[in-house]
Amino acid sequence: MCNRIGPRLSGTPLAAAAVEYTRQILDTLGLDSVWLQPVEVPHWDRGEPEQVRIINSTILGTEVLKAVALGNSIGTGPAGLAAEVIEVNSLKEVETLGHAAIKGKIVFYNRGFDQTHISTGPAYGGAVDQRGSGPSKAAQYGAVAVIVRSMSSVLDDVPHSGALVYSPDQPQIPAVAISTKGANLLSSLLKQEKTRVYIRTTSRMLKPKPSFNVIGEIKGSTHPHEIILVGGHLDSWDLGHGAHDDGTGCVQSMEVLHQLKKIGYRPKRTIRCVLFMNEENGLKGGLEYAQRSNDKKEYHLAAIESDAGGFTPRGFGIGGESADQDDRLKKVMLWSNLLEPYGLTLTKGGGGADIGPLKSQKGFLIGFTPDSQRYFDIHHTAEDTFDKVNKRELHLGAAAMTALVYLLDKYGTEN
Amino acid sequence: MCNRIGPRLSGTPLAAAAVEYTRQILDTLGLDSVWLQPVEVPHWDRGEPEQVRIINSTILGTEVLKAVALGNSIGTGPAGLAAEVIEVNSLKEVETLGHAAIKGKIVFYNRGFDQTHISTGPAYGGAVDQRGSGPSKAAQYGAVAVIVRSMSSVLDDVPHSGALVYSPDQPQIPAVAISTKGANLLSSLLKQEKTRVYIRTTSRMLKPKPSFNVIGEIKGSTHPHEIILVGGHLDSWDLGHGAHDDGTGCVQSMEVLHQLKKIGYRPKRTIRCVLFMNEENGLKGGLEYAQRSNDKKEYHLAAIESDAGGFTPRGFGIGGESADQDDRLKKVMLWSNLLEPYGLTLTKGGGGADIGPLKSQKGFLIGFTPDSQRYFDIHHTAEDTFDKVNKRELHLGAAAMTALVYLLDKYGTEN
Repeated sequence: MCNRIGPRLSGTPLAAAAVEYTRQILDTLGLDSVWLQPVEVPHWDRGEPEQVRIINSTILGTEVLKAVALGNSIGTGPAGLAAEVIEVNSLKEVETLGHAAIKGKIVFYNRGFDQTHISTGPAYGGAVDQRGSGPSKAAQYGAVAVIVRSMSSVLDDVPHSGALVYSPDQPQIPAVAISTKGANLLSSLLKQEKTRVYIRTTSRMLKPKPSFNVIGEIKGSTHPHEIILVGGHLDSWDLGHGAHDDGTGCVQSMEVLHQLKKIGYRPKRTIRCVLFMNEENGLKGGLEYAQRSNDKKEYHLAAIESDAGGFTPRGFGIGGESADQDDRLKKVMLWSNLLEPYGLTLTKGGGGADIGPLKSQKGFLIGFTPDSQRYFDIHHTAEDTFDKVNKRELHLGAAAMTALVYLLDKYGTEN
Repeated sequence: MCNRIGPRLSGTPLAAAAVEYTRQILDTLGLDSVWLQPVEVPHWDRGEPEQVRIINSTILGTEVLKAVALGNSIGTGPAGLAAEVIEVNSLKEVETLGHAAIKGKIVFYNRGFDQTHISTGPAYGGAVDQRGSGPSKAAQYGAVAVIVRSMSSVLDDVPHSGALVYSPDQPQIPAVAISTKGANLLSSLLKQEKTRVYIRTTSRMLKPKPSFNVIGEIKGSTHPHEIILVGGHLDSWDLGHGAHDDGTGCVQSMEVLHQLKKIGYRPKRTIRCVLFMNEENGLKGGLEYAQRSNDKKEYHLAAIESDAGGFTPRGFGIGGESADQDDRLKKVMLWSNLLEPYGLTLTKGGGGADIGPLKSQKGFLIGFTPDSQRYFDIHHTAEDTFDKVNKRELHLGAAAMTALVYLLDKYGTEN
């Protein structure tokens, strides 16, 4: 996935290669069925390398800032644009400053991760609204472009991409992420003088493209209508090779079925591996999968997503909603004792983007939880490559997922 | 420690630099006292780059094997030596084969890690007798040299050093480690034909050198005679920069005292940071420290060693022996609830090489337990460099150690 194919942004030829590659792997596992589920996906293109630089500074003169366009962003046009920068720490601050302060400017969202969180996920969650919704919020008040401090756990010179979502009722303006070091430099300069930045991006949204979720399953012997799903997402950003996001999740999900077949296990329930397309910039695969599943009146007893990196497994976060979940949750939580010797903890609350749309089926939505410390160092960057994956960590994660699938299959979730 | 000084093998000028560097750091922390404790250490020198190659193979001709001399090993002499190789999987197998099979040969210990262990420590522990005691066992039966499969979790071409201990009643023979890939190649060839290997090493033991343990402490306000020790070891192998082994342990140990001073904490008990010299090839620092401590009739309530890498903290292993330890252990184990939210587990059994000699004082000997998956990928190799250290993981480890020291100080261990 990483070294032979590489980046797999939705709609690109390499995403199609990943579909075919994983389908061929699933075909070798002796499953009961393997199929492609059609889904139309957005096709965004980054275009030429981004140019972002501080200009006409009395202190620095011209200073290049390493930058990447945010996914789904429009471009500046070939000439680029230049404007004065205004730094803010939140979307709320944009509202407070209002039109007079924002109009005609480049809004620079610079709120970093709260490093006091033990896990990095909440730190990401606490900052990512600036990337996702910041551009439209700035546009609402007349900004001409947006610069976002990279969503990163580390101070370095590597910019992190990731999707923005344009609000349908606001003008679309270009948005880029700069590295955390670049953000510190820009912020420092803004304290000393008015600062203008030049941005040139040629990114654009192309026509939607046909693509696929890749699915394989072992049919349940006694409860075939109860589905236990394991999955990750096939698509990645165009930077790096999508190793931890989410090549590892795909490989681990396939490995669960591989291991069960290898030991000759005949599941009572249907075990299904789903490799979703387009998690990164549209979630079309997850939405399409749930829609079709609902149309067929399927029931997912549990869906487990691995999309937090292939690091040492720490446990699972168990979410999903239903009237009787508390009783079922108590039952599942009793398995903690079985998993603890392997360093795994079951915690309440969890899930995954791709499996989220299955919520209405009222099964468990479970997030595989690996050690989180290194994930946001490389997330959505050119550094997310195969050499960052540790073989034993990857294997232990697949083993943890297999163990939970086994328990779910053997005991079910009903009391 | 890594980038400014680098490798810090006992007896070398860079080990002396590490002593002075860390003493200067401790001097800035506002401690009650900082001192150097003299200790004489062995001074082993690797000499010229090792040459190890398969020779006169009908299949391969000549094939170079990446190799490093084992620490404390004698050299082959400038001409090197060549002999037929016999592969064994254990010291026991050498005994079983006996003189007739072993005499005049190079014994090749090729038992790898048992990868079914969840933690890598027991896999290392299950293989390392081949490196430590294998050379003298082979010499006992007339072998001329020893080749050891590297003590490694991974299959790659990086040889791992580490100490051998010559038995005083056997002749000393040279010993090298080859990479795991090299070991597989050699083993494969041995299944097909008699195989000769050429070894040239110029390693040698020089005269012992004066050196130091580096110590700093905050005096206890109400129980100054109860000492809580945190430590790691200053020395490293001459390959790589001793980043995870054990630069991180030293930095974390100093950081515990730094944090306590920074928040203005006045401990009841004496908190002492000890950076031991010569853990790798003699343990002289740990032995000297305990000897002097016993002479002064000191009591170490607890000693915590960080010498398993600077990865994400998973908890502490609590060992040590005393008649009433079970009661004290019960008390300490109650703190598990306080540490669990930080992903930390207290387990029974643990310690560390340097603090081991404090056993007779009957306090707790505690091993800091980081995530173990990556440690033995790079342990004792040229790859153990600063870029393998993750800042947040390192910080979380220091925070975990500080938390345990705080609990030990606040509540003591007596009921």
